[in-house]
Amino acid sequence: MRPDGRKPNQTRNVTIERHYIKHAEGSVLISVGDTKVICTATLEEKVPPFLRGSGQGWITAEYSMLPRATPSRNQRESTKGKVGGRTMEIQRLIGRALRSVVDLSKLGERTIWLDCDVIQADGGTRTASITGSFVAMADALNVLVEKGTFDRIPLTDYLAAVSVGVVNEVPVLDLNYMEDSSAKVDMNVVMTGSGKYVEVQGTGEETPFTPDELQNMLSLAKEGIEQLIMNQKIALGDVGDRIGTKEPQSV
Amino acid sequence: MRPDGRKPNQTRNVTIERHYIKHAEGSVLISVGDTKVICTATLEEKVPPFLRGSGQGWITAEYSMLPRATPSRNQRESTKGKVGGRTMEIQRLIGRALRSVVDLSKLGERTIWLDCDVIQADGGTRTASITGSFVAMADALNVLVEKGTFDRIPLTDYLAAVSVGVVNEVPVLDLNYMEDSSAKVDMNVVMTGSGKYVEVQGTGEETPFTPDELQNMLSLAKEGIEQLIMNQKIALGDVGDRIGTKEPQSV
Amino acid sequence: MRPDGRKPNQTRNVTIERHYIKHAEGSVLISVGDTKVICTATLEEKVPPFLRGSGQGWITAEYSMLPRATPSRNQRESTKGKVGGRTMEIQRLIGRALRSVVDLSKLGERTIWLDCDVIQADGGTRTASITGSFVAMADALNVLVEKGTFDRIPLTDYLAAVSVGVVNEVPVLDLNYMEDSSAKVDMNVVMTGSGKYVEVQGTGEETPFTPDELQNMLSLAKEGIEQLIMNQKIALGDVGDRIGTKEPQSV
Amino acid sequence: MRPDGRKPNQTRNVTIERHYIKHAEGSVLISVGDTKVICTATLEEKVPPFLRGSGQGWITAEYSMLPRATPSRNQRESTKGKVGGRTMEIQRLIGRALRSVVDLSKLGERTIWLDCDVIQADGGTRTASITGSFVAMADALNVLVEKGTFDRIPLTDYLAAVSVGVVNEVPVLDLNYMEDSSAKVDMNVVMTGSGKYVEVQGTGEETPFTPDELQNMLSLAKEGIEQLIMNQKIALGDVGDRIGTKEPQSV
Amino acid sequence: MRPDGRKPNQTRNVTIERHYIKHAEGSVLISVGDTKVICTATLEEKVPPFLRGSGQGWITAEYSMLPRATPSRNQRESTKGKVGGRTMEIQRLIGRALRSVVDLSKLGERTIWLDCDVIQADGGTRTASITGSFVAMADALNVLVEKGTFDRIPLTDYLAAVSVGVVNEVPVLDLNYMEDSSAKVDMNVVMTGSGKYVEVQGTGEETPFTPDELQNMLSLAKEGIEQLIMNQKIALGDVGDRIGTKEPQSV
Amino acid sequence: MRPDGRKPNQTRNVTIERHYIKHAEGSVLISVGDTKVICTATLEEKVPPFLRGSGQGWITAEYSMLPRATPSRNQRESTKGKVGGRTMEIQRLIGRALRSVVDLSKLGERTIWLDCDVIQADGGTRTASITGSFVAMADALNVLVEKGTFDRIPLTDYLAAVSVGVVNEVPVLDLNYMEDSSAKVDMNVVMTGSGKYVEVQGTGEETPFTPDELQNMLSLAKEGIEQLIMNQKIALGDVGDRIGTKEPQSV
Repeated sequence: MRPDGRKPNQTRNVTIERHYIKHAEGSVLISVGDTKVICTATLEEKVPPFLRGSGQGWITAEYSMLPRATPSRNQRESTKGKVGGRTMEIQRLIGRALRSVVDLSKLGERTIWLDCDVIQADGGTRTASITGSFVAMADALNVLVEKGTFDRIPLTDYLAAVSVGVVNEVPVLDLNYMEDSSAKVDMNVVMTGSGKYVEVQGTGEETPFTPDELQNMLSLAKEGIEQLIMNQKIALGDVGDRIGTKEPQSV
Repeated sequence: MRPDGRKPNQTRNVTIERHYIKHAEGSVLISVGDTKVICTATLEEKVPPFLRGSGQGWITAEYSMLPRATPSRNQRESTKGKVGGRTMEIQRLIGRALRSVVDLSKLGERTIWLDCDVIQADGGTRTASITGSFVAMADALNVLVEKGTFDRIPLTDYLAAVSVGVVNEVPVLDLNYMEDSSAKVDMNVVMTGSGKYVEVQGTGEETPFTPDELQNMLSLAKEGIEQLIMNQKIALGDVGDRIGTKEPQSV
Repeated sequence: MRPDGRKPNQTRNVTIERHYIKHAEGSVLISVGDTKVICTATLEEKVPPFLRGSGQGWITAEYSMLPRATPSRNQRESTKGKVGGRTMEIQRLIGRALRSVVDLSKLGERTIWLDCDVIQADGGTRTASITGSFVAMADALNVLVEKGTFDRIPLTDYLAAVSVGVVNEVPVLDLNYMEDSSAKVDMNVVMTGSGKYVEVQGTGEETPFTPDELQNMLSLAKEGIEQLIMNQKIALGDVGDRIGTKEPQSV
Repeated sequence: MRPDGRKPNQTRNVTIERHYIKHAEGSVLISVGDTKVICTATLEEKVPPFLRGSGQGWITAEYSMLPRATPSRNQRESTKGKVGGRTMEIQRLIGRALRSVVDLSKLGERTIWLDCDVIQADGGTRTASITGSFVAMADALNVLVEKGTFDRIPLTDYLAAVSVGVVNEVPVLDLNYMEDSSAKVDMNVVMTGSGKYVEVQGTGEETPFTPDELQNMLSLAKEGIEQLIMNQKIALGDVGDRIGTKEPQSV
Repeated sequence: MRPDGRKPNQTRNVTIERHYIKHAEGSVLISVGDTKVICTATLEEKVPPFLRGSGQGWITAEYSMLPRATPSRNQRESTKGKVGGRTMEIQRLIGRALRSVVDLSKLGERTIWLDCDVIQADGGTRTASITGSFVAMADALNVLVEKGTFDRIPLTDYLAAVSVGVVNEVPVLDLNYMEDSSAKVDMNVVMTGSGKYVEVQGTGEETPFTPDELQNMLSLAKEGIEQLIMNQKIALGDVGDRIGTKEPQSV
Repeated sequence: MRPDGRKPNQTRNVTIERHYIKHAEGSVLISVGDTKVICTATLEEKVPPFLRGSGQGWITAEYSMLPRATPSRNQRESTKGKVGGRTMEIQRLIGRALRSVVDLSKLGERTIWLDCDVIQADGGTRTASITGSFVAMADALNVLVEKGTFDRIPLTDYLAAVSVGVVNEVPVLDLNYMEDSSAKVDMNVVMTGSGKYVEVQGTGEETPFTPDELQNMLSLAKEGIEQLIMNQKIALGDVGDRIGTKEPQSV
């Protein structure tokens, strides 16, 4: 029995509110249980120096938490004067993950900035950021479809992320903060709509984990991601039909 | 006629949603037209070094904008590695303003951190931050009343802030972003429930302003602030009755 | 009776020594009582990126204090690795104030850097910086008149600044450090030769102030600024006659 | 056929030279092919603030590359003024990995600093750093055994790391730089002497990878780590016999 | 013939104005030709951590230039966010030099901060800073003599500094900026009243220099320093008589 | 008698291992006693902005120590976020010294970066860095000779550096760390193959030194540098024959 009464393979309640910030090309408020993240997608008509002249686009992400997103106040990184290691790891992960499903050649020399700002944290903020950013990014690209720049949204597949772990010797799906604090293994999985892995990151700092535990967590993650991609499709509605080539829509 | 159809002395629509972030002692989402700010108040059981042993409390504020709170994306200050001049000016103003209505001796050696994070900007973010922070601060202090630390909330008065300016030669109240951009004078006024000034900051960078214009703006500001304090009282409900000594409540 | 025997509406003794630093286009040592500031004006034949191609000039200011300008040594901001909030506020104020009396179109794509370095502080360093910088800026622009770039110095008016406050319930003009420390209200006013406001910044952090106190302080400020502009005219001598269109000289 | 003629499941040549730096409690120069890393272990008789009074020890790591460890010179992070995201990710990984096999209670309130400085890079620098640091850490702890502080070295198991990937559709073990650059999947695995996972980090940024590819890479990693732990045992000789309780030595 | 008509062994005109800044324990404005430096000495009743409990005092220095001390404006180090290499070298030199003539045991656990701020630069700013700081430091220590803390000023000797160089193949003393720019060798010498070396720093970056040139420059430096110490003695007057044990005064 | 049994005029054992890092154009591991420094030389086909279009090349150096190069661990400068004063002084010295023997016009618009990383420190790290960098720089320039860019290596002379000091009243050559700690004078001398000075930096912080001591130290330095240049010639072998015009080789 989990602290909030869920079964081991059950995700928390997910809501995705689109068009949350009026200025951004794409923006959502994603809630996964009590974890709430504002994800915005900004289109920029240029690329970083290393891609100039390449004809390729770029996807980059930044992640932050409001000071009171957490039970005790955490100091702002702007005040500290530097971005910490945890933040860098997370924003590199978000950017890399989202980049994997964008057809960067079709995108052309444009950058999409994904900004993930956690306004309330209860475990799984990086995976919620990825799942929410996918929807914001689709909306931002849809702006270009509506302008006639593209026929279809240049995404090759859906993409979502979830955490899994081993708590009290039981593999469980979508850990909240209380579970996360007592988990002996913590793993984040990013997967596409067609069931391929984009990222697998498992850590057994306190207690190394066995090959069997690894396999059980991978199974749970697959179940969770299928559920999350269903949520994305419902949220996107018609816009989802414009994503990619024919194949992904039939998933 | 103003861009959004308001009269010169009319404020925008204001909503104040309390208990917006579950972890914070006080938190509100304040909307003033399309300007939206999350204000949280954090209680800390210690004071900065210069007040240790003094028996006095402290109020301090931090202010930030999400990157896409604005029409074009602005770079994060954490990424720049330093807090800019505009941010510093605003957060110093917020802290100073709120401090003016706290009975710091009654507060004792405690600090209240006010965090104002603008999630959508449309002019007047610093004044909305002050107006919203007052409510968050009252809620945070009410936690101490409910614990029995205080009998009443140690605030000496209500406090709100509003902008005024001269646009197309007409003094107007509560400028939105479009008006702010074309105003020849921009002034922020912070005032208490009993009609005293806490801050008056007027700037006529492009065109110096006359003594008459100054007087007209001060009158408009007074009207606006009375309205905003009414909004605060409605939002706070019963908690408002616990504020300060008897005198301020009868205002 | 004030600590140094002045009447409430009396300024301290002011001296303005021009051509103080041989390398700068304009430079003064201004003394207001025991407050001493070196103000230099540097002409640069380019503008910041946001003005390139606009045909407009720019005025920007930097402010600093020597470590022992004050009774106890203050740490250098270069050693701290960042410019503090107070410094930023002051240098933004100085730049904004001086910019208000420059005809930026006539100036053309040039920048004037105003550097205000306080070598001894006794209250009113920011207002002395503004008053002194005006003279240094006029001298720097006169260099361009002497070169034949301009017929007249492209300033639209004189400009000076003074502090006012309420000390022991009495509104007073031009506070020294001792008065400033015990003032319940502290206000800085920047005004032009023709009596228009450029900045009004009043703060009642410890005690909010009444509308009457505000009006009294504004009156004192007007008196003080008229006196300071007289000092500027005497210091500038012939160069003053070249300032602006005919109108301001007749003030 | 791989660029250097190895079979898919073959590691590069490994040498571990102990006592490489005379001042450090433990130090090795590890070479994995042309990748060369100096790993030092420093004993400090205190712990970070969050562990004071807990009776527990701490393991922390720092990682850096000499500017010409790589084909083109990379700028020093000291000159840039900040530690980059890649470095932070790697040093957090090294610290977390090594911590997993230390009995922190037996270690007591001591910190071991692991410094990994890459003097020549040819792929796999983070995994070589982990494998080398284990030996340096054992030597540093052995200093405490020789002083009589401990009877045995308080490590619970051996630990090594290796990279695997998919190059030209073939899963391969221990990628050099040329292979790494063209791999569609890149995965790092950290494993204990008893065959448990400590970290599994796989990334398919360019091309998501299938569940089968994941399983094949996990198998190769296991082979590689067994080989590396054999190298560690040979290098440590007698000191290895003092590691942990009886169980691990019999592995 | 030198640009300003001096002979090779002739120093520029030197003036030392004591008590220049009212707040500092010691302060001078030293002018060496057109080079002008404000040197203040601040007494602090504590020492850096590495000396606590040692019974020894400490001398430390900071050096800076106003932005327009030089022909073209140089950016402030506070704005750059870091102290540059040249500044660090100079302030380390000043501190080291002054420390050499202080009896740190007699000083006890006190620090003297020497702040050297160049307001106008024309070559030789570091040597003028040393020569001026000696006088400021003597005045600061004299404050402690007047309070009765010491019988005599705990300095072991006088100390001054001068630059020498080879310009147009001729060794010359006390180079101004124009000479310094064309010198093939640049050397700074710090020497005590009794003719001992404290620092000898010669650099022949463009052209290595011969042993003969070195000897000639050392001779010139000795002459110059004797002259400068005479200037210091005249400036200090009676306070000079309180310096050190009997021996140095008879020099 | 010195701690390691050497005579006053005896250097420590020196080895210079060329081609130490495979990626760099020039690289050596130099050992002077227990001091070990990796010196790499990187050729870059551009110059800093101040030299663009001048036809002149540039030589610049960076210096760092591994954290455990020293008896106790020193914090990385990348972690501190800034390069310290000692490091800046040393790397400026190395760059200046090496530049003095390069024919910058013949080099053309190219930069050579010299990176000196101390992996083990036992006194004299800056002088070992200079002596080793000379060899690495010669190898890097030889790459251009082999490519046919130059006929001969555009160096005007050999260059080496050594420390001298006064320990227990005796002038000694090439101090190790133990001697350095107790020396009353510490001096570094950089000299060319033809016996000219490039740098003379002597410091008598604890005790000023006499003219006689200075002369004795200069003699010892000359002996030491002749020995070191002999080591460089042996290490360079044939490559040495390509250095400069005919004259230097006959030294």
